[in-house]
Amino acid sequence: MVQSWPVACRRCWHPLNFLIVANTGDDFRYLGLPISPDLDSIMYALAGVSDEIRGWGRSTESWRCMETLAELGADSWFQLGDRDLATHILRNEALANSRSLTTATASLCQRLGVRHELIPMSDQPVATKIQTDCGNMAFQHYFVREKCEPPLRSVIFDGADRAPYNPRIDDFLSRWARPFVVICPSNPVLSVDPILALPGMRALLDTLPVIAVSPLVDGRAIKGPAAKIMGELGLSVSAVGIAEYYQGLVDVMVIDRLDESLAPDIEALGMDVCVADTLMTSPDKRRLLAEHILKFMHDVER
Amino acid sequence: MVQSWPVACRRCWHPLNFLIVANTGDDFRYLGLPISPDLDSIMYALAGVSDEIRGWGRSTESWRCMETLAELGADSWFQLGDRDLATHILRNEALANSRSLTTATASLCQRLGVRHELIPMSDQPVATKIQTDCGNMAFQHYFVREKCEPPLRSVIFDGADRAPYNPRIDDFLSRWARPFVVICPSNPVLSVDPILALPGMRALLDTLPVIAVSPLVDGRAIKGPAAKIMGELGLSVSAVGIAEYYQGLVDVMVIDRLDESLAPDIEALGMDVCVADTLMTSPDKRRLLAEHILKFMHDVER
Repeated sequence: MVQSWPVACRRCWHPLNFLIVANTGDDFRYLGLPISPDLDSIMYALAGVSDEIRGWGRSTESWRCMETLAELGADSWFQLGDRDLATHILRNEALANSRSLTTATASLCQRLGVRHELIPMSDQPVATKIQTDCGNMAFQHYFVREKCEPPLRSVIFDGADRAPYNPRIDDFLSRWARPFVVICPSNPVLSVDPILALPGMRALLDTLPVIAVSPLVDGRAIKGPAAKIMGELGLSVSAVGIAEYYQGLVDVMVIDRLDESLAPDIEALGMDVCVADTLMTSPDKRRLLAEHILKFMHDVER
Repeated sequence: MVQSWPVACRRCWHPLNFLIVANTGDDFRYLGLPISPDLDSIMYALAGVSDEIRGWGRSTESWRCMETLAELGADSWFQLGDRDLATHILRNEALANSRSLTTATASLCQRLGVRHELIPMSDQPVATKIQTDCGNMAFQHYFVREKCEPPLRSVIFDGADRAPYNPRIDDFLSRWARPFVVICPSNPVLSVDPILALPGMRALLDTLPVIAVSPLVDGRAIKGPAAKIMGELGLSVSAVGIAEYYQGLVDVMVIDRLDESLAPDIEALGMDVCVADTLMTSPDKRRLLAEHILKFMHDVER
């Protein structure tokens, strides 16, 4: 007897049923401290302490240390709040004591009360570098200091060829009969490609069902420069463009209801389409989207 | 013709006429950051940003990062303000980039607008360790976490025998015809002895006039645990006890007017005595004490 959906779903929500793998190509040293923007964004979101309005960093933040650093003539183009700094100080201490980034992240998650397992894609450093019409630059210089303004030509993931993907991924997969992969609505070029660039990652994903949520809705990015960058790379700036980018990797594309008319074009690429409300503007909407995806995969399995 | 005192004095005030050597036996790593309490206290005082009421750290301070670290279950017994943190972050960055503590300190002083040359006693680490009736402990554990409460038996300067004194000291001395040394009113056991423990330091001081300001006035310490510790070590808790401690090293003891009656006892130890107002409760009083000492040494030379 197959369990009814609500029961299966409640079981699905257990935090240990998820392994969250974050891009670390954006990581860099800033003022000597190791910064992991994607790990932190996910960690803060899961801990319920992220600043929803600013879109990055911690809520109820202050900037006294940063103001003082600026007074002292130090770099201040990348803003670290006083509360956020605590994260980087603890990560710095852990790494200085020869802990891995995986261990440091687990400790930070535990301190913040995050029950999900969040891991870096690799414990080896990978540095995303952007080649633009205005020269080559490190990721955060492009993304934060230059506000993604220089037209992007190509992206390099420096060190990716020597960075084994996190062994926790294989551990996790070995515990489940029918695991599947969700690529969250994220920039495919800047945030997903670094993970795919790790040796063996594409081959691993070829063995698994992969479902990707389009980061473009109605031809626009929900957040960030995905639309601008896809245009600069000559890609179609729409959920179809995302599907084309992921062709051969992704089995199911999740697109927004506003893009429902694009479903035939995506199905023509050999993918299934799942139509959902993908704008996660509230905790409820986040949960509904996740439920929608889990239910879709559950129904596919049956 | 000998210059009159006011002219000589104005020339004396030029910052480059001073080399300030700080104890680094109190230094330690805290939350992974390199903390140099004595260097910072002097630097903040010279920059005019120290908190006179609290007695340590920076003025107009806030504690948001520390509060967050405490929320996250990290150590918080040693308080680092948000503004003070900027100092430790920049020092950490400099040391991580293989700069010496001397270079890191010079850079911080320059950023804070300090014109005097302030240097660590050595670029090699020395760790003051306290042997107490409650066991042995690192200096800051004794001084801050235990508030100097455990009775002190003895003090060890771990690494001092392998720590050459800062070569800037010889450079500086070689530039002056008649240099002299001032030991500021400081704890002789905890703050001055680490400097004296460096190889060659006592031999160097034997070649120079040395003037020491008593940290005890009327049998009490102006600040800190000097009186308590001297009692625990069986020393006389007075300016005479200080003079006895420094006998053979110091040529002139500066004592407070309140202790003028002790002058014969100190002279009997073979030292000259300079009586002054030693309570530096305002910038004016600081300057007057310094002028008094410079004038005394100037008159001695004539």
